Amino acid sequence: MMKQFWFTLIGAVWVLTYVASPVTADVQISDATQECLDCHIEFHPGLVQDWRNSRHARMTPKKALTVDKLKKRMSSTSVPEVLQNRVVGCAECHTLRPGSHSDTFEHNGYDIHVVISPEDCGVCHVTERTQYAKNVMAHAYGNLAENPLYQDLQRNILGKSTLQEDRVHFSPANDLTRSEACYYCHGTRLEVTGWETRDTDVGELEFPIIKGWPNQGVGRVNLDGSLGACSACHTRHHFSIEMARKPYTCKECHTGPDVPAFKVYAASKHGNIFSAMNSSWNFTQVPWTIGTDFSAPTCAVCHISLVVNPDDVVISQRTHQMNDRLEWRIFGLIYAHPQPKEPDTSKIRNKAGLSLPTDFDGGFARDYLISPEEQKRRRQSMQNTCLNCHNTYWVRNYFERLDNTIRTSNATVLTATGLLRRAWKNGYAQGPEQKGSPFDEFIERRWSDAWLFYANNVRFASAMAGGGDYGVFADGRYPLVNTILDMQNWLNTQEIISNMGKE
Amino acid sequence: MMKQFWFTLIGAVWVLTYVASPVTADVQISDATQECLDCHIEFHPGLVQDWRNSRHARMTPKKALTVDKLKKRMSSTSVPEVLQNRVVGCAECHTLRPGSHSDTFEHNGYDIHVVISPEDCGVCHVTERTQYAKNVMAHAYGNLAENPLYQDLQRNILGKSTLQEDRVHFSPANDLTRSEACYYCHGTRLEVTGWETRDTDVGELEFPIIKGWPNQGVGRVNLDGSLGACSACHTRHHFSIEMARKPYTCKECHTGPDVPAFKVYAASKHGNIFSAMNSSWNFTQVPWTIGTDFSAPTCAVCHISLVVNPDDVVISQRTHQMNDRLEWRIFGLIYAHPQPKEPDTSKIRNKAGLSLPTDFDGGFARDYLISPEEQKRRRQSMQNTCLNCHNTYWVRNYFERLDNTIRTSNATVLTATGLLRRAWKNGYAQGPEQKGSPFDEFIERRWSDAWLFYANNVRFASAMAGGGDYGVFADGRYPLVNTILDMQNWLNTQEIISNMGKE
Amino acid sequence: MMKQFWFTLIGAVWVLTYVASPVTADVQISDATQECLDCHIEFHPGLVQDWRNSRHARMTPKKALTVDKLKKRMSSTSVPEVLQNRVVGCAECHTLRPGSHSDTFEHNGYDIHVVISPEDCGVCHVTERTQYAKNVMAHAYGNLAENPLYQDLQRNILGKSTLQEDRVHFSPANDLTRSEACYYCHGTRLEVTGWETRDTDVGELEFPIIKGWPNQGVGRVNLDGSLGACSACHTRHHFSIEMARKPYTCKECHTGPDVPAFKVYAASKHGNIFSAMNSSWNFTQVPWTIGTDFSAPTCAVCHISLVVNPDDVVISQRTHQMNDRLEWRIFGLIYAHPQPKEPDTSKIRNKAGLSLPTDFDGGFARDYLISPEEQKRRRQSMQNTCLNCHNTYWVRNYFERLDNTIRTSNATVLTATGLLRRAWKNGYAQGPEQKGSPFDEFIERRWSDAWLFYANNVRFASAMAGGGDYGVFADGRYPLVNTILDMQNWLNTQEIISNMGKE
Repeated sequence: MMKQFWFTLIGAVWVLTYVASPVTADVQISDATQECLDCHIEFHPGLVQDWRNSRHARMTPKKALTVDKLKKRMSSTSVPEVLQNRVVGCAECHTLRPGSHSDTFEHNGYDIHVVISPEDCGVCHVTERTQYAKNVMAHAYGNLAENPLYQDLQRNILGKSTLQEDRVHFSPANDLTRSEACYYCHGTRLEVTGWETRDTDVGELEFPIIKGWPNQGVGRVNLDGSLGACSACHTRHHFSIEMARKPYTCKECHTGPDVPAFKVYAASKHGNIFSAMNSSWNFTQVPWTIGTDFSAPTCAVCHISLVVNPDDVVISQRTHQMNDRLEWRIFGLIYAHPQPKEPDTSKIRNKAGLSLPTDFDGGFARDYLISPEEQKRRRQSMQNTCLNCHNTYWVRNYFERLDNTIRTSNATVLTATGLLRRAWKNGYAQGPEQKGSPFDEFIERRWSDAWLFYANNVRFASAMAGGGDYGVFADGRYPLVNTILDMQNWLNTQEIISNMGKE
Repeated sequence: MMKQFWFTLIGAVWVLTYVASPVTADVQISDATQECLDCHIEFHPGLVQDWRNSRHARMTPKKALTVDKLKKRMSSTSVPEVLQNRVVGCAECHTLRPGSHSDTFEHNGYDIHVVISPEDCGVCHVTERTQYAKNVMAHAYGNLAENPLYQDLQRNILGKSTLQEDRVHFSPANDLTRSEACYYCHGTRLEVTGWETRDTDVGELEFPIIKGWPNQGVGRVNLDGSLGACSACHTRHHFSIEMARKPYTCKECHTGPDVPAFKVYAASKHGNIFSAMNSSWNFTQVPWTIGTDFSAPTCAVCHISLVVNPDDVVISQRTHQMNDRLEWRIFGLIYAHPQPKEPDTSKIRNKAGLSLPTDFDGGFARDYLISPEEQKRRRQSMQNTCLNCHNTYWVRNYFERLDNTIRTSNATVLTATGLLRRAWKNGYAQGPEQKGSPFDEFIERRWSDAWLFYANNVRFASAMAGGGDYGVFADGRYPLVNTILDMQNWLNTQEIISNMGKE
Repeated sequence: MMKQFWFTLIGAVWVLTYVASPVTADVQISDATQECLDCHIEFHPGLVQDWRNSRHARMTPKKALTVDKLKKRMSSTSVPEVLQNRVVGCAECHTLRPGSHSDTFEHNGYDIHVVISPEDCGVCHVTERTQYAKNVMAHAYGNLAENPLYQDLQRNILGKSTLQEDRVHFSPANDLTRSEACYYCHGTRLEVTGWETRDTDVGELEFPIIKGWPNQGVGRVNLDGSLGACSACHTRHHFSIEMARKPYTCKECHTGPDVPAFKVYAASKHGNIFSAMNSSWNFTQVPWTIGTDFSAPTCAVCHISLVVNPDDVVISQRTHQMNDRLEWRIFGLIYAHPQPKEPDTSKIRNKAGLSLPTDFDGGFARDYLISPEEQKRRRQSMQNTCLNCHNTYWVRNYFERLDNTIRTSNATVLTATGLLRRAWKNGYAQGPEQKGSPFDEFIERRWSDAWLFYANNVRFASAMAGGGDYGVFADGRYPLVNTILDMQNWLNTQEIISNMGKE
């Protein structure tokens, strides 16, 4: 009896709280979206449920326009009238700007496009869209595809290998391989290559054939010509700020030995605090308050989010130009160097005219890189966050170590480069001057290991206070020196053999 | 005042719900189990507490028999009368089928056996037990122990090494090493080798001596002759469906460079969603509803669990034959190939009569592998899950990439095999034709690195949409090509030296 | 679901109650601490908020003195009168023992020191402080800095490399590199090297310049001469027992290939249970009850925490001498060997007078290592924990496997050492007898890979029941043998070349 009574009571509370709440009552779904939902709830229940759990399913742009400054999640100050009074559903995004998308097709009476672009999202989130366009990530496709040196490296990693006489040869990789390898993260170039009719549960329907799809890479070249994919971090169709603020999202592309950010973070003090304590943090609050909402930085805290102190004083403005607080570029290239001035790095040329931000001996291609003054500004901007938990002296010394590590890791790579040059000069391998690729022989790959993996791990460990293992044994200084000793040993053997041959 | 009222109210509800709840009143523990508990609560409190928190401690088979079809967790439609009215406690399992277990011994008046086998669990869970017997995992012990090629590899990995003249020799590994290395996951062969009397806190007691124990490997050869260990995934003594559905369970055996499923998953979009959001998912519900209980697949969603859509329409039937939806076998062997027809793979022979599912040059041992039609059926069966969140075109293109990667990774391994053949042919190393092991020389191990680690990582990254890093730099295509260049470099050096010797 | 709802409701009420509760009214913050807070809440809100969430902010030593024996978190039985009636705030620690710290400086009328030492924490936590002093970790700085062999290794890992003629040379690493590499975990030697005046938001202030700062390494040499940093594990300023008990804290220093404890744990059955189930465990309870508070060991359970059974019978006493239950030292040195007798290992000498706990061929430097009797005592002490969930036979066999693995992994390293000796003897490399470093040539580094990485992973996998992958393919026996085959291959090539030269 008692149980029944309580059951009824609880039921009543639940109904009052959830079912009849004004939040739910406000939800205005457009007719078009309702039509989408009616079918797709059956065909794609997972996808629909994600959207239902999202803020987009509960909030109209009109209401979003009234939100107080710091609490704003929608940056556009005006939104087309037609979008204002309905929640952001299927049709709101997938019928937006139909004339601009080459994949727009007629679908049950609507002009639908499959691929949502930053230009679509930018209708409501204009600031983020504009910032992201200045992000090197937005240009991640072209920065590979239009760099001839990278293209050479790509062929010698992804290409089809064949054994010809005494040598392995590599021919260019096919599209399918490229789209799941480097361009998986960098983004593919999408292209409508035709149309096909498919027999579906609701009859024959026509759909576009899209080369390079699926892809959620950060620099995807979209069917409206825009660059990027917001869904790379704001996973469809929940578009959750919680997910984007957790480091697992960044891990998707930043965990390998070439860019070990997540691994280094997870083994750092900051990562330890996150792993042990984050279940009690608040990942959805805007703005995001240091000390109250979280007690250690995630990737987003330092690089992206709008962060305030408990008095609502802004510590860092939100930015979607992710290198806004970064002075050095520490990975992916032979030597660490100041961040590039422009996000399109394919235009960079070093003294020798190669598509590299440094000379072969480490000198900076200054014209294309940010100035020391801009470096200083970005450092200070980053330090604003650190200083909420650490004192001035702590922070300064920590950055001094990073500067030292930039210098010493570059110096060690220079030693490796010196060994490679000797191999080329003495004819034991064929470099660019011998009209060979710098990436297709044993000794050349040991050299690329040195900078692409190890020097790079050393710098991440330093930059992210992940010290210890990743700075030394786990892809750090120890294997870096191993590589150099391996190169030296190989050279010695070649020299001995060569001298014998001459005798 | 109001606060006080609520506090009292909540307190009252809590007392009523938990302390006096009929759930507890219903629990019927058998006398035998109660006797076990009386002592073991003192000797093994951790173990007993795990059981107490389990469903086994709360549910009788009789009640389980009445559960509605889709909600059923117990598949047997009849259960021995004697077991029906008591919860599943210590005695219910450890005194089951005493005549069948060679480790059965008299213990305080009961015939107890130590090792519970799938045959025991199968009394209540007959469908799972039957399916699992058809799982290649059930045969994981014999598939190693009865494959002569593997035995050769094993000696050259686990064996005792000694330095003899100019060569390192390996003698077979001892039992203790084998049981904590490959057979830790694959399962040991258990054997009662004697009996011993031990002085315990409750006097002298006799116990069996069991060679190969402890072990929870998936293909354990049990003391009743059955194969497998349910506790490999359903960890004793909680036997939690929650744990089995989380990817950490699979990680125990699927995380190394030879089978990087967990690492690839954790860096994939699906893994990202799991890591960021799973604290709000429901891991105990049966059936398991897409979109409601979880919003991204874990290992179990695609490979094992009964999954339904929000209308309770079945998307995937539960299966404990884990390759039921797998068309390709992508790891552990030289080339990717269609899944084997039979779970006992030790019977497979290639054209050359070797225990391999492919020829040395990659051709399939068709007679032993599933047909293209069966491959297609399994692919469709897997795609049923994908299609709940992704459209047809997305899914089709994604599988096209996988097919491409199967082809290209096999082709790259063929290049490595070509280099090894040249080494053997020219006498720089001794292969099977020279009556040598293919696994005990430098160049041979570089070859096995190529397929055992790298080609394999490339395929996992492709198959699990973990693209990016694991497909390229993290044990992927880059180190794969490095290995080939290393082999080629070594061959070149051998040839130069050899030619010099001839001059 | 219903249960969840009520829990949430109860939680909410609890929060409301707690915030306005008399508990808060009891909190007695000293005037000095209040002065600190008044400024630093603005300058370092994150740091202050961490403290506010800590037990230190809620508890006075006086009250802590009255806590029942097993529940005690403060081990000192007397605490200076002046500290007793106030919570442990900024001033309580940072003005303690001002005369002992060389970084003490006048700051707004108070004598403040920056670096808190174990001697400071020991005022209230004397037992932990005393135990920790006997911990090899406390001596982690000197154990590197005063070991000439390590110093040689360090130069060849961290040192500046330059290319001279036909050889790479290494000069000693600079301070900044050393403090973020090995000494990041081991601890730096702190030293006040001067004073500086800084312009702050509250006017000009003078601060000490501290070489080696920041650092939270376990063996930090503090400015009062004491050794260690409690904050290495009890992260400032929350000093949370919850964090210290979770394995992520240990991971900060124990995750690389040289000491893969976390990785092995995470892939073990214990780690699986932790990962899947820990969100429902209680990490703050003292004492910590097996089965009730947690259902699988974390690092702390086996090595540090006070653990009781559900009847409050003590299973393991709390210890901050972390090798108290460890018989073997399994990593970091050429061969596994009994734990050192004294925490200062720089005094150890082997037969050849080298700073090593074993001879070059594996014999133990017995005088410096614990006796077989002490080994046995420590094993039993560790097994006390195991036996709460596993029976005697299980535990015994498991430790037998570990003993076997100690023997076989040492034997395999001996094979590698044999190959290196041959290289030295034949003049292909320069070892100590040839007045060369044993760490600066290709073949020597392959040898150090064998023991520093692979033999070591094999032992961790065995010791932590993480079997499978880490014992075989993931940095285990497979790459261990690869390394030996690589060394042999190199030797063969050197011999062939050398013989040719002689012809």
